[in-house]
Amino acid sequence: MNIVIIGSGNAATVLGRKFKTAGHAIVQIISRNASQASELAYEWDTESANYLSLINRDADVYLIAVTDSAIPSVVADLRLPGKVIAHTAASVPMEVLKHVSTHYGVFYPLQSLIKEMNELPEIPIFIDGNDEFARRTLEKLAHSISFDHVLPAGDEQRIKMHIAAVIVNNFVNHLYTLIEDYCRKEGLDFKQLVPLIEETASRLEKASPKDVQTGPAIRGDQVTIDKHLEILEGHPRLKELYGAITASIRHSG
Amino acid sequence: MNIVIIGSGNAATVLGRKFKTAGHAIVQIISRNASQASELAYEWDTESANYLSLINRDADVYLIAVTDSAIPSVVADLRLPGKVIAHTAASVPMEVLKHVSTHYGVFYPLQSLIKEMNELPEIPIFIDGNDEFARRTLEKLAHSISFDHVLPAGDEQRIKMHIAAVIVNNFVNHLYTLIEDYCRKEGLDFKQLVPLIEETASRLEKASPKDVQTGPAIRGDQVTIDKHLEILEGHPRLKELYGAITASIRHSG
Repeated sequence: MNIVIIGSGNAATVLGRKFKTAGHAIVQIISRNASQASELAYEWDTESANYLSLINRDADVYLIAVTDSAIPSVVADLRLPGKVIAHTAASVPMEVLKHVSTHYGVFYPLQSLIKEMNELPEIPIFIDGNDEFARRTLEKLAHSISFDHVLPAGDEQRIKMHIAAVIVNNFVNHLYTLIEDYCRKEGLDFKQLVPLIEETASRLEKASPKDVQTGPAIRGDQVTIDKHLEILEGHPRLKELYGAITASIRHSG
Repeated sequence: MNIVIIGSGNAATVLGRKFKTAGHAIVQIISRNASQASELAYEWDTESANYLSLINRDADVYLIAVTDSAIPSVVADLRLPGKVIAHTAASVPMEVLKHVSTHYGVFYPLQSLIKEMNELPEIPIFIDGNDEFARRTLEKLAHSISFDHVLPAGDEQRIKMHIAAVIVNNFVNHLYTLIEDYCRKEGLDFKQLVPLIEETASRLEKASPKDVQTGPAIRGDQVTIDKHLEILEGHPRLKELYGAITASIRHSG
């Protein structure tokens, strides 16, 4: 397909690379950030533009991959009759696009996308569309970059899935950040925890997390918990979360 | 080396398999759990015993891999002069073994060990020993099953590392458990989150977690946070942790 990408951040960059790898043509990249746009245009051997008024009107799919709050201003004056237009946001209703074209939808990648990543990760994609043509086109595009993980999802389901993503990605990563900081202060080597972190994640391919819960909280081992809380005296934020999550585990056990 | 393993739980089983794979001989497995002991003896083509009085006295290393609270009773009447004896517990002082032999130490595997796992994960091992002979012997054994990840650690460091392990494994797995439950109740497919969960873990090989923190909390996006909290009304425990961890992220941003 011929694709125009609007935006030059993490989602625009990583999705664009996936499209290129899958053999699609990115015919234009549009971004107010001129240096990012020309960098991506160079990488993808295509054209860049910094104004929506210069948009290429001959593509098949137009993908708006900008921050949630920027979407209304991007689409305000955009008219692309007959084309398929989609945004990539979990939390923005599909209907925000209804004035742009008769075929509009959503193309939400459920992944943490960072342009500096070397390898492109697997990206489950949640699709919505206002009509059969939009849905089919976006679904086909999604299948070309994510064979096993393309699912339909309306506005409400995307927000709910986004909450889950925030917790398993942002919240978990925050725990890692606190622990890296704790290790530095205590003279421990954070890197030694990486095999454990990877094992904790990868066993979910086969096991349900509730069946592999271990540790002092689920055992009700108050002696160990108290010892840990004492050592965490010097790490108040970690101590508070230790208490809150331990209580939640004990309640579930 | 010739090894006697005392215990038949997760740590005993997984470490025993690692030892076998590395070419060591497990000359005996001792456990009060007769069926587990004979199962492992069959798997490893060795002998099992259910009483410590039947212990084989000709091995090089004796590894006590039982729950923390059972260690004192295991070692109370155990005397193995000249042998190297070690336990595998993070939170139990090394000195609990001092009456057993003149050479004693600790062999703490920093990993979540579950006997049902198909593939043996990488296991960083923290070593302590009361003398050069114990330390060297345990270090050599550790290197044979975990080449890159063998480190010295005293009682205090082991406990501190264990706290980190509890947080990145038990706490993170609890978040996965709550999210699996949330997905079931909301009609979402938890499996679609696994690529994101794996990406969140595996990028730590190259990046520091603080450099890859994303999401509404670090952006200070209160509109999205409020929307999420509203949807989480029906999930009180998740909602409480959402509030606590979001506050911690905002405080760090």
